[in-house]
Amino acid sequence: MTARQPSFGPVSIESHFDDVFGAAGVAEQLRLAQGEGFDAVVIACFGDPGLDAARELTTAPVLGIAEAAFHAASFVATGFSVVTTMTRTSVIAERLVQRYGFERSCRGIHGTDIPVLALEDCGEDTVAMIEAAARRALAQDRSGAIVLGCGGMAALCRTLQQRLGVPVIDGVSAAVKLAEALVALGLHTEKLGDYASPLPKRWVGWAAPLGEAPAA
Amino acid sequence: MTARQPSFGPVSIESHFDDVFGAAGVAEQLRLAQGEGFDAVVIACFGDPGLDAARELTTAPVLGIAEAAFHAASFVATGFSVVTTMTRTSVIAERLVQRYGFERSCRGIHGTDIPVLALEDCGEDTVAMIEAAARRALAQDRSGAIVLGCGGMAALCRTLQQRLGVPVIDGVSAAVKLAEALVALGLHTEKLGDYASPLPKRWVGWAAPLGEAPAA
Amino acid sequence: MTARQPSFGPVSIESHFDDVFGAAGVAEQLRLAQGEGFDAVVIACFGDPGLDAARELTTAPVLGIAEAAFHAASFVATGFSVVTTMTRTSVIAERLVQRYGFERSCRGIHGTDIPVLALEDCGEDTVAMIEAAARRALAQDRSGAIVLGCGGMAALCRTLQQRLGVPVIDGVSAAVKLAEALVALGLHTEKLGDYASPLPKRWVGWAAPLGEAPAA
Amino acid sequence: MTARQPSFGPVSIESHFDDVFGAAGVAEQLRLAQGEGFDAVVIACFGDPGLDAARELTTAPVLGIAEAAFHAASFVATGFSVVTTMTRTSVIAERLVQRYGFERSCRGIHGTDIPVLALEDCGEDTVAMIEAAARRALAQDRSGAIVLGCGGMAALCRTLQQRLGVPVIDGVSAAVKLAEALVALGLHTEKLGDYASPLPKRWVGWAAPLGEAPAA
Amino acid sequence: MTARQPSFGPVSIESHFDDVFGAAGVAEQLRLAQGEGFDAVVIACFGDPGLDAARELTTAPVLGIAEAAFHAASFVATGFSVVTTMTRTSVIAERLVQRYGFERSCRGIHGTDIPVLALEDCGEDTVAMIEAAARRALAQDRSGAIVLGCGGMAALCRTLQQRLGVPVIDGVSAAVKLAEALVALGLHTEKLGDYASPLPKRWVGWAAPLGEAPAA
Amino acid sequence: MTARQPSFGPVSIESHFDDVFGAAGVAEQLRLAQGEGFDAVVIACFGDPGLDAARELTTAPVLGIAEAAFHAASFVATGFSVVTTMTRTSVIAERLVQRYGFERSCRGIHGTDIPVLALEDCGEDTVAMIEAAARRALAQDRSGAIVLGCGGMAALCRTLQQRLGVPVIDGVSAAVKLAEALVALGLHTEKLGDYASPLPKRWVGWAAPLGEAPAA
Repeated sequence: MTARQPSFGPVSIESHFDDVFGAAGVAEQLRLAQGEGFDAVVIACFGDPGLDAARELTTAPVLGIAEAAFHAASFVATGFSVVTTMTRTSVIAERLVQRYGFERSCRGIHGTDIPVLALEDCGEDTVAMIEAAARRALAQDRSGAIVLGCGGMAALCRTLQQRLGVPVIDGVSAAVKLAEALVALGLHTEKLGDYASPLPKRWVGWAAPLGEAPAA
Repeated sequence: MTARQPSFGPVSIESHFDDVFGAAGVAEQLRLAQGEGFDAVVIACFGDPGLDAARELTTAPVLGIAEAAFHAASFVATGFSVVTTMTRTSVIAERLVQRYGFERSCRGIHGTDIPVLALEDCGEDTVAMIEAAARRALAQDRSGAIVLGCGGMAALCRTLQQRLGVPVIDGVSAAVKLAEALVALGLHTEKLGDYASPLPKRWVGWAAPLGEAPAA
Repeated sequence: MTARQPSFGPVSIESHFDDVFGAAGVAEQLRLAQGEGFDAVVIACFGDPGLDAARELTTAPVLGIAEAAFHAASFVATGFSVVTTMTRTSVIAERLVQRYGFERSCRGIHGTDIPVLALEDCGEDTVAMIEAAARRALAQDRSGAIVLGCGGMAALCRTLQQRLGVPVIDGVSAAVKLAEALVALGLHTEKLGDYASPLPKRWVGWAAPLGEAPAA
Repeated sequence: MTARQPSFGPVSIESHFDDVFGAAGVAEQLRLAQGEGFDAVVIACFGDPGLDAARELTTAPVLGIAEAAFHAASFVATGFSVVTTMTRTSVIAERLVQRYGFERSCRGIHGTDIPVLALEDCGEDTVAMIEAAARRALAQDRSGAIVLGCGGMAALCRTLQQRLGVPVIDGVSAAVKLAEALVALGLHTEKLGDYASPLPKRWVGWAAPLGEAPAA
Repeated sequence: MTARQPSFGPVSIESHFDDVFGAAGVAEQLRLAQGEGFDAVVIACFGDPGLDAARELTTAPVLGIAEAAFHAASFVATGFSVVTTMTRTSVIAERLVQRYGFERSCRGIHGTDIPVLALEDCGEDTVAMIEAAARRALAQDRSGAIVLGCGGMAALCRTLQQRLGVPVIDGVSAAVKLAEALVALGLHTEKLGDYASPLPKRWVGWAAPLGEAPAA
Repeated sequence: MTARQPSFGPVSIESHFDDVFGAAGVAEQLRLAQGEGFDAVVIACFGDPGLDAARELTTAPVLGIAEAAFHAASFVATGFSVVTTMTRTSVIAERLVQRYGFERSCRGIHGTDIPVLALEDCGEDTVAMIEAAARRALAQDRSGAIVLGCGGMAALCRTLQQRLGVPVIDGVSAAVKLAEALVALGLHTEKLGDYASPLPKRWVGWAAPLGEAPAA
């Protein structure tokens, strides 16, 4: 498994503005990676930035971690709740829920107002805050599972699942495992229709998306 | 992998009536299997009979093959079409599409009026009929992938994918691979809420669901 | 009016597992009743088990009591609330609400955690619990009518309607009256399409659905 | 059964403009009828004009014929088609379908461009046109029942049902029978919430809605 | 800009009954105004009474104030809340939200039980009540804008926007400005389809809708 | 009115890949424009790229041209059809229709497979192709208005409206006029909730979004 990072952009994604550059960064990396060969792609940010663009750029399966988490949750519970970082990002998760068709199974999205970067090497205080939010969500939403609404929460998944006694889904590992399943099934991203390769076209200015060094 | 069959019921499922006994048969087998231990369960009939009951009966992940196929298709195409057996079963697939939230990605359900049992050791004629129906579906629905709407079509999946040049999803293998992914993720069917174990209760008459021999 | 009971199954339905056998029992009884003649069928359990299977088996109108109650409520109020028995059965009612198209008029489903069998010859305590739940539901959901979410609550309907001062709908009597209306209208269950009679087919094992004694 | 007609308005309803005065006429008649006593009200026009206003004005059950027909059809078929008069009125039926929650069961609305008044004492030609439209609708929509989209088609219901071999629903008789059912159930239109009686208030100009002769 | 009032009807609209006569009054005035010429029409009541009828009667753009307010709000916020007069009129706003497609952006409708006419020359008390309701709505619904749910609240819009610090939308001015935009764009109400002019037809009784004096 | 163009990106947008960079370009220009002052922003590409990001970056109203066209169309017709360029972009329009709540009023999206750049100084041949597609769409979708699905079609709007005899909406002028209306109403993009300004954060690599020259 190879982790790649966009060559530019904000250090975390907590707004539509950040998200737009995350999407461009994903597209850039897909272009750069094309010579290297890969079996599947995981976009490891809970807003699934650039998912459709990435799917146009490759025949390999591409999964977003929000998408993967919602799907996995719906297999083990009739209803799940999302516990996420900044409340202001709830609307991004909400849009994904609608777009992917989980309006009925996603019973609530709960912000904790913990910044994304505060999740790195976070202490028991942060874990306790997330645990408390999850408990409130389970009771209030009458849910049976928790989706962690940020790639940065991946390390807490096992602990939270033990403490809460319900399935807790980390989108990063969910996306990796679902991607492996799709590869094993011999499925590729379709090229007949909506995910056909982008038409080649003239490009002005900054060339990063083409995988070239930006012109000074 | 162990294949189990209900001890009773119709030899194929092509109506709501058949489906009801398929569901009871799935529940029966889940009860019988409980002593043996298993990691995950796949219900290998495209109507996903008894899915919720099965999930109540175990903490292992349980997947239906219609459910698995829809989820897999939605990862590789924005829209897919279902090609199935008897037109009269379309309504069953339609209900599942609605219940699982795929109203927008499932763009059409197409009956071929090939009986389920005719799929066993089927010849080129049958394959050609299914291929033709799939081509019509792709064009008419503007879809990018085909879901095979019957467990009996599993053997045709690879051939059809080669001929059609789009992802063709067989629910049986999709469910197996997705179930493996859930097991790898350490996810279990939730027991806090809607999938809590059934309450023990008095039972009258025929005892098959309890895994006992029916009283003559 | 003739009351029939499945020859097998749990003594009450409070889970998906119970429901699956209720559905098989309904199908069994429809097959057994076919020689006798009847004008209409009411499935007197709030999960409407086996409704579609029953409709395939006869040209007589068939009504479920949840279905009947929802329809009746929507004629006398813009919004109604369901007060039911075990909270764990809410998901069954919720699925029916979605399937029948009452997402907008059903404004809430409220479990009381009274077991179904406790409703037999229940005392004032139980009535008071249900009344209190109904009052909370009316206020919280801004509803104008109450649907009783269990066939076992039928006897309480009149009392509750008097105390609450809003329409209180018991599905059993609603289904009977609506069935009479359909019979009077000369309407039969359609046989052209989705409710065509099941195809005759080979059956293995236990023969109850065919109305025969189970083979020991 | 007493038939009442508004004291004013167009002789048939084939537009939103006509409908608005039909609604006012229904409200007028409800006010005029209040001294007389009645058990239930049927609004015998397929646009259900004034349905909510009528419900505010009485505790008796009130049914519209479009509403009644949709409900009745959904009890005997998974999907139905509407065959109506002027194509331009389709949008009125469409709005009712959405408002009542029949988006999934109503599979098509088919105009015949037969004017409402041409249905009075109509000959075989007209019947044949409606029959042909119904046959096309059944095939194209994969429906199992036909709803007649105009009160003026009531007399043709039996003939069409015989010829088509599927349930054909006339809203007028459906509404009458469903209203009888609601009366038998002891259900009244709720007054706690959205259907509370209108507040008394000052009224300017024309007094018909109050049941008085208009001031010259 | 010319303000017209129906020649008849209730002095305010706070029920479906009132609304029906408001709609007839709108249609009457549209007919009366036809000789005079106008560029656009605004229906200045939050229930948008007679909107479709008015659109049939003219090629000029016609806007309802609820409609205009919802559209304007959706341009400046992902979610808005409606603060209205009598709670009993919430259902009217709710129906409009559904019909216009704002189910996702309208996050709540909040009655204050202030009568419409109490808004004329209202004092600080009334403003404070509305402000308090708006604050509760913003917090509870997680909304970013307030829609004033009554034409009579127009004068309070600026004050409330200053106090609340979020966009506050008055439908009357919104409709006027949006109507001016449509006129500037050269757009007219379509006459090809659902908004074709009403067919001329015989009319019985009271003639107000035709713009004539009622026959004594 | 000032037209700005991103400093980088593809010369036209006909895929998700192109769209992602269009969105980044919109965000870049919003940042660059912040010192200059402006009253409102129009994003003149039918995919509305970067709409949410742009709204976060300013208190001025921001409109996308697809969004503006859909809203304008819904004021003058109950149903409209979109006629666009490459069929492969239909899915982008479809997603916007769903997100904005126009699922019921947008009755069809029709690709012509005319490339975006072919619309510059296009001849009668191209106009005739678009006209023909619009006529087919009106008939097939039973629509009353046409939305032009590309900013490059703006110049054809008047001609097509004359030829077709129905409202034809060009999103660019629609967005400009609607933006003027919002400014006249004193409405700003909300900053309390989902459109709060992005949090300042560290940025790596290419600095264009910050309005600085990219580091070589």
